[in-house]
This record gives sequence, C-alpha cells and structure tokens, in this order.
Amino acid sequence: MSLVIIGSVAFDTVRTPWGDRERIVGGSVPYCSLAASFFTRPRIVGVVGRDFPRKTLALLKSRGVDLRGLRIKAGKTFFWEGKYEDDPNKRTTLRTDLNVYADFRPEIPEAYRGSRIVYLANLNPEHHAFVLSQFRKPAVVAMDTIRLWIDTKREALLRELGRVDIYFANDEEARMITGESNLVAAGRALVRLGPSLVLLKKGEHGALVFGRDFVFGVLAHPCEHVIDPTGAGDSFAGGFLGYLAGREGLHLRDVRRAAVYGSVLASFTIEDFGLGRLETLDAGLVEARFRQFRKMSTF
Amino acid sequence: MSLVIIGSVAFDTVRTPWGDRERIVGGSVPYCSLAASFFTRPRIVGVVGRDFPRKTLALLKSRGVDLRGLRIKAGKTFFWEGKYEDDPNKRTTLRTDLNVYADFRPEIPEAYRGSRIVYLANLNPEHHAFVLSQFRKPAVVAMDTIRLWIDTKREALLRELGRVDIYFANDEEARMITGESNLVAAGRALVRLGPSLVLLKKGEHGALVFGRDFVFGVLAHPCEHVIDPTGAGDSFAGGFLGYLAGREGLHLRDVRRAAVYGSVLASFTIEDFGLGRLETLDAGLVEARFRQFRKMSTF
Repeated sequence: MSLVIIGSVAFDTVRTPWGDRERIVGGSVPYCSLAASFFTRPRIVGVVGRDFPRKTLALLKSRGVDLRGLRIKAGKTFFWEGKYEDDPNKRTTLRTDLNVYADFRPEIPEAYRGSRIVYLANLNPEHHAFVLSQFRKPAVVAMDTIRLWIDTKREALLRELGRVDIYFANDEEARMITGESNLVAAGRALVRLGPSLVLLKKGEHGALVFGRDFVFGVLAHPCEHVIDPTGAGDSFAGGFLGYLAGREGLHLRDVRRAAVYGSVLASFTIEDFGLGRLETLDAGLVEARFRQFRKMSTF
Repeated sequence: MSLVIIGSVAFDTVRTPWGDRERIVGGSVPYCSLAASFFTRPRIVGVVGRDFPRKTLALLKSRGVDLRGLRIKAGKTFFWEGKYEDDPNKRTTLRTDLNVYADFRPEIPEAYRGSRIVYLANLNPEHHAFVLSQFRKPAVVAMDTIRLWIDTKREALLRELGRVDIYFANDEEARMITGESNLVAAGRALVRLGPSLVLLKKGEHGALVFGRDFVFGVLAHPCEHVIDPTGAGDSFAGGFLGYLAGREGLHLRDVRRAAVYGSVLASFTIEDFGLGRLETLDAGLVEARFRQFRKMSTF
C-alpha cells in the first residue's frame, strides 16, 4: 500500500543535559519518512524555505522518499527550539518561528491522490478536511497531534478523532484529551472517540496498542542513555505505518509487528541528535533489533 | 525446591480515592505466601500478636502455607496506615506501630533449615546475617527492601546486596540506591552491586529483569481501576519465587516465566483491598491470565 506523510519540516535547536545542537534538520516529515523508508517508498507533503539544505533532500531521495509533494518557498524554514531535562519525557519549548509553515495549506500532487495510507502528522485539525478531500479513497487515515492543538483546537480535534482510523498519542496527550489518569482507561476512551486503533506511546516504558476488542503491549528497547528524544514519536509512526504499507490489508498480526517496528525505529532515533542515527542506519540493524525485541519479550 | 519467606505480618489501614479499609490483614508474608501458594507450599517466618485473626491463619493453612515458623506473641500485631493518591505508585505512610515486630529476631524452625530458596522480605538488613546463618545451604537467597532501610541503613543494605542472588526493587528504590534516573542504567548498576538477578518493578508499566548478560521485559496486565496497590510488590515476589520453587534449578526460561507469573499475581492483588482478591483466586484464573499475557505480548 502507498503511504503519504503530510506534516512539518523544520530546523530544530535542541538543548539537552548531554549537549546542544543548533539548527539541525527536524520536523515530523523527515523523521517519519526516513523511518518508513526501511519498508516502503513514502511520499511526503510539506514546505521548506530556500534555506533548507540540499544535503537533506539528497539523503531522503537516496532512501527512496518521494519528494514531489515538498514545496520550496521563498522565506525561511519552520524553526523550533526546545530543552530537555534529565527526564527525557519532559520537554519545554523555548521558541517557535512558523515562517513558511505559517500559511501551509497542503496541496496534494495528482500523483499522490490515490494513496492508500494517509498520515496527518501534527497538522492543525481544522486543515484535515481540506487535505483529505484531495484524496480519492484512502484505506487508512492516521493522525497524530501536539499539545498546542489539544489546548487551542479541542473541538476540531475531537471531531477529527471521530473520522480517522489510527491515532498516535503519547501518555501526556492521552491524559489531556480524555481526562483519565490511568493509561489503560485513557487508551480505551480514545478508541471510543472514533479510531479503531490507538497507539499510546510511553517513552522508556514502550507502547500500548488499543483496538475495539484487544490490547497489545510493546516494550521499549532498553536504552541507558537517551541522547535526544526529538522525533521519537514521528519515528514510531514512520516505522509503524511504513511496515503496514509494505503488507496487504490490516491484519492484527501485522499491526502487532508494525508496533514493534515503530518501537524499534524510535529506539534508534533517540541514540543520537536529530536525524543522526537514522542517517547511518541500515536494514540489517533494524532487523537485528527487531529480533532483540522478540528475545526480550518471549517467555 | 522449598521456599521460605521471612518478613512482616500486619494490620493495614489503607486510604484510597476509592474508599478506606481499617485494620485489614497485610504485611509482606501474607501477600507473598498466598501468591506463592499457587505453585508450591511456602514456609513462613514471622510474628503476630494475640489480636491476629484465626480466620487468616486458617486461610493460609488451607492454601498449603506452612505456619510452623509463625510466632504468636503477647501484644499487638504490627500496624501500618497509608494513603494513596490518584497515582497508585505514590503512597504516604501516615502511621507505623511496630508492636510485636519491634524486637523480631527471626528464629528459623529446624524443619525449615534445609530450605533451598530463602526470601528476606523487607527485613532490616542488619538482621540478614543472623537469619541466614540458621540455614544449611540455600541455593538461592532473595531480598526486597523498603525506603526506610535505604534512608537509614544504606551501608548495611549495600553490603547485603553483595551477598544475595536475587533482588526485588521498585523504580523509586532502584533510583534511590543507584542515583541513576534512567531505569535501565539503574537496573544494570544494581546487578553490578552483586545480585545475579534484579527484578525491577514499574507498577502499571510492568517489570524489567536484569541479569549479568541479558535484559527481559514483562508487561503489566492492562488494569483500568487499581483499587488498592498494597501488596503488589510482595505478590510479585511470591508469584516469581513460588514458580521457581516449583521448577528444578534456575534456567533462564523458567526465570522469564516466573517474572510473568509475578506480574500476573500482582495484577490480581491490586483489583481489591488487602488480600481480598488473592483469597478468592483459583489456579484456573491464574493460568488464564498467564495466557492473556502471552497473547498480549506475542508478535
């Protein structure tokens, strides 16, 4: 199945207890598409400024990412600056300059309109309808969100949850949307809001997958030193949706494996700053870690 | 292998967001021995006052628990009162009356001295040597601890960690002892302190098992409503050690399954106040939940 990823492309400045990095490439689309590229040839839709490095475009292209939906506009690329404390699950946004992303109204190239899996990566939920109206008949619509939209566009967000098939949330977002402090209760409440599949990401504690009538759990790779957690969630989504795109249909067995691949890809991303680890990763290492997950959880 | 459990027997008053219970039976020994009784006939060593209910003794006996090491002394049984907030992993001790437990110097009955697995459940680490000296040649010595001993008997505690084979810790204890905030780093640091096996319990996030050269992860049962978390850790230890007692040797495959049984027993305990759920539990339900764990984690 063909996968299209629609979201942000950015420069990130990240400050961590292990060091800082200034203006490295980030955003949901680069993380997600690189992670997905181990299983499929993802199509991307996004916008960057003229300041965006050709090197990154070449990297994505070399991994089979379809760039026809990436617009290069006069102006500057979206910029985000954030800080992590000792607990990698807590981050503070220090600065956000939307720049060319400010009036981003994603236009879907004709060649993408028959895509089977559409991933709306942290888009303003008020823009979903416009984006989805450009697709013919996607089999699966997936979405993620960010704290900003939960705080400021709650009504639109709840409406969109009622329309999508798959929803990715981290623990904080799941609690904020549902008001449930217990994560199992929160996950089940999210399924009742609409999606037939909810992927609840718990950082170092792995992830839970909720369906209409099942719960499935995935461990996290045992990582002693998280260097930079930025992009872990986007990599999870990329591994998950990329793996599914490489399969036929949406069988439960594939969903389980997809969730493990999501956890595998996220576990690599956090081992280095920015896209660093995904850049050097190869399919053999991905498979080896997948086998480690199996070894770690089989009894 | 024969298992002996040495620790506290208590009355607990628990205050939770879902209600309070006054002076119900608790303590590490009742939880641990009831949990272990699904796999073996555990021997217990402890002390209670004359106020301790015969009904509980009859219950333990009916489950095959060997009570010959339980002393009934003039005076009152150990009393503990605690309060839980919405987050079941955080608890506050409101009152502790040691009573007959104050000068508890565990005497091991002659019939127990050949036991193969010895579990020191939250004992003052300064008393370990006296207790262990009474055993002939245990194959496995396991211990747990509590915040009190980490705060007040740190040196003795570290010395004892260097002598035991298995150590049970929750996330807070692991962080306090090692100073590591990352739980994988904390678990590995604990193994370096001595035990060949560290069971790191993470409440709703399951548990991690650390050995000299492996890490194994166990999910938690997806529980929407934790009624009373008291005794979850003791039940985990009981399920774990009880299962191992029923096997020959300490094969890795058995250790993995033991950890799952630990998580299974803990998941039942938290479904009701005190010993309530363990009292009504039967082996069929334990096996059914074990199979659910397998279903939930297989991919």
